[in-house]
Amino acid sequence: MTAVPAPLAVSIGDPAGIGPEVIAAAWERRVEAGLPPFLAIGDARSIRAVWNGPTAVLSDPASAATVFNEALPLIQVDDPGEIVPGEPNLAGARCALDSLELAAGLTRQGMASALVTGPVSKAQLFAIGFTYPGQTEFVAERCGIAPANAVMMLAGPSLRTIPLTVHVPLADVPRLLTTELIVNRARIAARALTRDFGIEQPRLAIAGLNPHAGEQGTLGREEVEIIRPAIEALRAEGLDVIGPLPADTMFHPPARARYDVALCMYHDQALIPLKALHFDDGVNVTLGLPIVRTSPDHGTAFDIAGKGVAAASAMIAAIRMAGECAARRAAS
Amino acid sequence: MTAVPAPLAVSIGDPAGIGPEVIAAAWERRVEAGLPPFLAIGDARSIRAVWNGPTAVLSDPASAATVFNEALPLIQVDDPGEIVPGEPNLAGARCALDSLELAAGLTRQGMASALVTGPVSKAQLFAIGFTYPGQTEFVAERCGIAPANAVMMLAGPSLRTIPLTVHVPLADVPRLLTTELIVNRARIAARALTRDFGIEQPRLAIAGLNPHAGEQGTLGREEVEIIRPAIEALRAEGLDVIGPLPADTMFHPPARARYDVALCMYHDQALIPLKALHFDDGVNVTLGLPIVRTSPDHGTAFDIAGKGVAAASAMIAAIRMAGECAARRAAS
Repeated sequence: MTAVPAPLAVSIGDPAGIGPEVIAAAWERRVEAGLPPFLAIGDARSIRAVWNGPTAVLSDPASAATVFNEALPLIQVDDPGEIVPGEPNLAGARCALDSLELAAGLTRQGMASALVTGPVSKAQLFAIGFTYPGQTEFVAERCGIAPANAVMMLAGPSLRTIPLTVHVPLADVPRLLTTELIVNRARIAARALTRDFGIEQPRLAIAGLNPHAGEQGTLGREEVEIIRPAIEALRAEGLDVIGPLPADTMFHPPARARYDVALCMYHDQALIPLKALHFDDGVNVTLGLPIVRTSPDHGTAFDIAGKGVAAASAMIAAIRMAGECAARRAAS
Repeated sequence: MTAVPAPLAVSIGDPAGIGPEVIAAAWERRVEAGLPPFLAIGDARSIRAVWNGPTAVLSDPASAATVFNEALPLIQVDDPGEIVPGEPNLAGARCALDSLELAAGLTRQGMASALVTGPVSKAQLFAIGFTYPGQTEFVAERCGIAPANAVMMLAGPSLRTIPLTVHVPLADVPRLLTTELIVNRARIAARALTRDFGIEQPRLAIAGLNPHAGEQGTLGREEVEIIRPAIEALRAEGLDVIGPLPADTMFHPPARARYDVALCMYHDQALIPLKALHFDDGVNVTLGLPIVRTSPDHGTAFDIAGKGVAAASAMIAAIRMAGECAARRAAS
């Protein structure tokens, strides 16, 4: 007899955002999308406010798999009171944080097999005293991992990218890049692609920082002084690495076929191609954690919340990917 | 009786590169691609070395249109001697420069209706004393236009982008951006989109420099201090401008539908999305010149020259676009 795998835990994010409706829509499309059993962690009333389908409020995750075919399983956190879609408030922010914390905790304890986080409003979280730059850092800390070792990867059907620097002014990027940073993140990425994505020998492409990857140092020295030494160090460890590649000629189909993940030097270098190609189904995956964690690559979209127009494709992709990664870990 | 429009002049670029073969391939596909009459400016032997089709060596462009259906018309520049595909030499570089100069001159004199430039090797041109950063600056100067007022636009079937800074280290970009630069280039772009592309009220999108366009100044100040004032100045002139837009959410299809051209702050911000989407048929157009000038958005590709594998789609697109722009100018 095979043990029933634990369900995935999906935190609803800000209850006034599109989290509740895209989770409900993902449940509705669970069969056609081939989704594994999951349960929502959050607020039942916020889901019912935007969705007429069946919910099953549970007291613990173990029964989620048995009810999953009939209703969207949910564990209720502290009641935030009535939440109006599109009108975030502090009670909703507390609900988002409670949901995240419980979902992360259940996953860490093995009562959920993976964590999928719904979109939160950082401004709202900061207003209730949240001190982390984002959900990723919060989850990493709860897992005992330094935020610097939790690596954000954006994954779409035909492209995976990792921004090595993220929410910093572009002018600060050159001085934030170090050989150590690149080597460290590349190692974490390579390990995770093997463990969670089943790629035995991951092929890493590392972008240059400057136009044409610096043209041998004539258009910038970072490739010569920082990036190339990192590539050499990684190759010396046996990793399959190409680069530094000119960033403008690494994202068309034949170029993408040459690697499994592109390590990019700054936010938009990674996000421009990912969103140009996979705007509606990009998944944010956190690599390097003891748990599997994914997230749809979109925000709370307060402006369209509750209107029935939010696309659930990214949430579906995030749940599917989390399930696949969790299954690989369970099988290994 | 309608005057026969002058043919387009296509300089062959470096004769050891893929220029000769893609021009010949464009001629072969002239009917299916709907290309207007054009003539090659360069070296007949270099074309015959890679192509078995008919060439007609002319002494002046006027007869090009009449022979165009039967043969690829060509005006010979000084004979560079035998050129081996894939093996650039100084004689070939001189031939490339002679071709460029003659093609530009014929176009300026109205003997050709537009200039299409084949790919050159900058390293080879520098070796024979060429002192311009590239062909664009050379052509601009011959036209009496300051290089700063010759604006490079990359155009594919579903996206046009303009990099406001180009071949400079990324670290230098923030200090090179000025409100005046943005305003000046945007004005030139708007005028050219009307005159050459027939867009009566062009819609300009201006990208931010920093992640999320700086998030109200918290992730960088350039949007607040440099870009936003430029947008206000342009709007005050009656131009249709949106921005500063977060660069990562402006290149998927619904976002692209909102503008006719995206003005980008640096090389890769403009080139990553353009090449990710239109690697094989991107056209480089120089806006703001008294003549129409286009170029395929690829290099000499010495590594594949003469092997019959080079894609002619970008050259075909460049010739077609030049013909369309020239026809609009002639009709206006």
